Amino acid sequence: MLYEINEKALKLESDGKKIVRLNLGDPDMATPPEIVEAAYAAMKAGKTKYSSSYGELPLRKAIAEVHGVEPDNVVITPGSKWGIFATMFLTLKDGGNVIIPTPYWTAYALIAKSFGAKVKLLRTDMEDEWKIDLAKLENLIDSETKMIILNNPNNPTSKAIDDKTLDATVELANKKGVTILSDEVYGAIAFKKTKSILDYGTGSRHIVSNGFSKTFTMTGWRIGYLVADKLLIDNVTKLNQVTINNVPVFIQYAALKGLELHQQIASNIKAKYKARAELATKKLSAAGFEFTQPDAPFYVFPKKKGTDGEKYSLDLLDSGVAVAPGTSFGDYREHFRISLTAPDDQIERALDKICEAAQ
Amino acid sequence: MLYEINEKALKLESDGKKIVRLNLGDPDMATPPEIVEAAYAAMKAGKTKYSSSYGELPLRKAIAEVHGVEPDNVVITPGSKWGIFATMFLTLKDGGNVIIPTPYWTAYALIAKSFGAKVKLLRTDMEDEWKIDLAKLENLIDSETKMIILNNPNNPTSKAIDDKTLDATVELANKKGVTILSDEVYGAIAFKKTKSILDYGTGSRHIVSNGFSKTFTMTGWRIGYLVADKLLIDNVTKLNQVTINNVPVFIQYAALKGLELHQQIASNIKAKYKARAELATKKLSAAGFEFTQPDAPFYVFPKKKGTDGEKYSLDLLDSGVAVAPGTSFGDYREHFRISLTAPDDQIERALDKICEAAQ
Repeated sequence: MLYEINEKALKLESDGKKIVRLNLGDPDMATPPEIVEAAYAAMKAGKTKYSSSYGELPLRKAIAEVHGVEPDNVVITPGSKWGIFATMFLTLKDGGNVIIPTPYWTAYALIAKSFGAKVKLLRTDMEDEWKIDLAKLENLIDSETKMIILNNPNNPTSKAIDDKTLDATVELANKKGVTILSDEVYGAIAFKKTKSILDYGTGSRHIVSNGFSKTFTMTGWRIGYLVADKLLIDNVTKLNQVTINNVPVFIQYAALKGLELHQQIASNIKAKYKARAELATKKLSAAGFEFTQPDAPFYVFPKKKGTDGEKYSLDLLDSGVAVAPGTSFGDYREHFRISLTAPDDQIERALDKICEAAQ
Repeated sequence: MLYEINEKALKLESDGKKIVRLNLGDPDMATPPEIVEAAYAAMKAGKTKYSSSYGELPLRKAIAEVHGVEPDNVVITPGSKWGIFATMFLTLKDGGNVIIPTPYWTAYALIAKSFGAKVKLLRTDMEDEWKIDLAKLENLIDSETKMIILNNPNNPTSKAIDDKTLDATVELANKKGVTILSDEVYGAIAFKKTKSILDYGTGSRHIVSNGFSKTFTMTGWRIGYLVADKLLIDNVTKLNQVTINNVPVFIQYAALKGLELHQQIASNIKAKYKARAELATKKLSAAGFEFTQPDAPFYVFPKKKGTDGEKYSLDLLDSGVAVAPGTSFGDYREHFRISLTAPDDQIERALDKICEAAQ
């Protein structure tokens, strides 16, 4: 349904209709000019050759420092999605299943499907603050379970996993010998300190996927990374060697510039999205929507009891606002996802239409 | 052995020794400045967002025109290696074998190995002008054979497949229902007109892999493409959606600029490499090496009867020249591969050392 809404939005736009696009997680801001200039300088300096499938050492060093690990624990990937694919492929290609809490970024399941791995979904609900039920999780783990994917903070709910639940989840996974792949792409710009899977050690079963897309407005640059034990990093690198070879070196130098300016860029982005999130939650509350307070930028995942999110999203499109129905993220028919990734004035008008449409 | 030589070369260089690197196919020239400027202009114009997993339509149109097909028959990939991986993965992941003539770019076999597909090698020999023996090929095809990979012109021999052999190969493959993946990455800069698999129609079993690396000195930019029937293009696009998502749009605009300047850039490169190939073949002949005349830039694959190519390559490294032993490309112990991808004066001195070392 996510793709249908997007296609319909594109169709309406090509017919000349103005659509405020709150259906995708692609920030409205431009990539910071310092990052663009760093890429250009690197291109001109001839950083346009084949290079290491691990990634460039200066970038790996800088990332290792951020996460308190060694450069050997870092591999650069063409987008965090590639890192997730590579990890899942290497862990699950010879069989087994992966457990994914819902609501979830459906790419995880599509990735599993692309090479025939089995997916087990673990439902969480807004009424429980989107908390993982440990008993249910334990019940779901069987002898074939190789991996659990955590998305922390979560897309679409923007909820971070509370420390107690994360502690218990890690303990259970360790006990059962199950790998945790933690997608922390919204972590660096979260509104509150969220625990990383790496806080439990960089053992062979704790893997972080991360990227530059969200923190540095670099979605289309396709650069991300994995942090894991050396063995997995070496194996992902071998897969890189026979697939993508390397992320263009000039893009790696652009990302490195981003990291250097991290403090400034991330705090700008955080402040901007915090203001948007506050506006959204105020308006949505007043209009009677139910939701959990976002712990991270970008998304709110409200519901209105008794509303069909798909019909609501399609109707809303005709009023010029695109959102993503909850069914795009699992069995959440009453919900829909708002991406706060449009210019401020557009977001304000769009929120008013969202509220009106639900009256 | 290719990687060992490269590692040893890097080690010697870090010890302060000058090494002429004729072991890798990475051109010594810089990416043309028009291409760099096109990338920069596109970045500044905000072409830094998520985009289509098919690739940008203007680029697909330009490529379609080059090959006389429709844009629907083209998908943009992050390097031609990714296109080869994607095609092999989609065709062979559920079983079957792939036939690869040797000598060959061993990445094909490593790709197959990465998801467990079986490889059958079909030997060709210098004494037969590296021709495919049709009877041997027919013999090798069994009920599990899904694909034949042609590399035309070939790495490491720089030999193009003659029309008669290609006609017969295509006829046999069609009769047997076997897909041909034709890696034509050296085709656009070949010294003589070579037939493309697309000259036999764009049926569902004729797939071309191509890239911008060699023609436009863009190795590290990671951009290539596949030309095939719409069904395969759609399936590769679906795989792109769950893996690499898209090639950065600004890189696609850089490649498009390359295509616009194709005539000028390709003829410069061809002329440069033709002169290098002539120098190499003259010197190698005089020193008693045996080889076939290159039909394409970059590589010569000579042998000296009775010489162990691995020992020869390692010894040669100590004289400051890196080449790739023939065993890096299959069972060709007497051969070694010279990449003519260093500045002219370096190539001349290196060739002299290559000839001396064999006396």
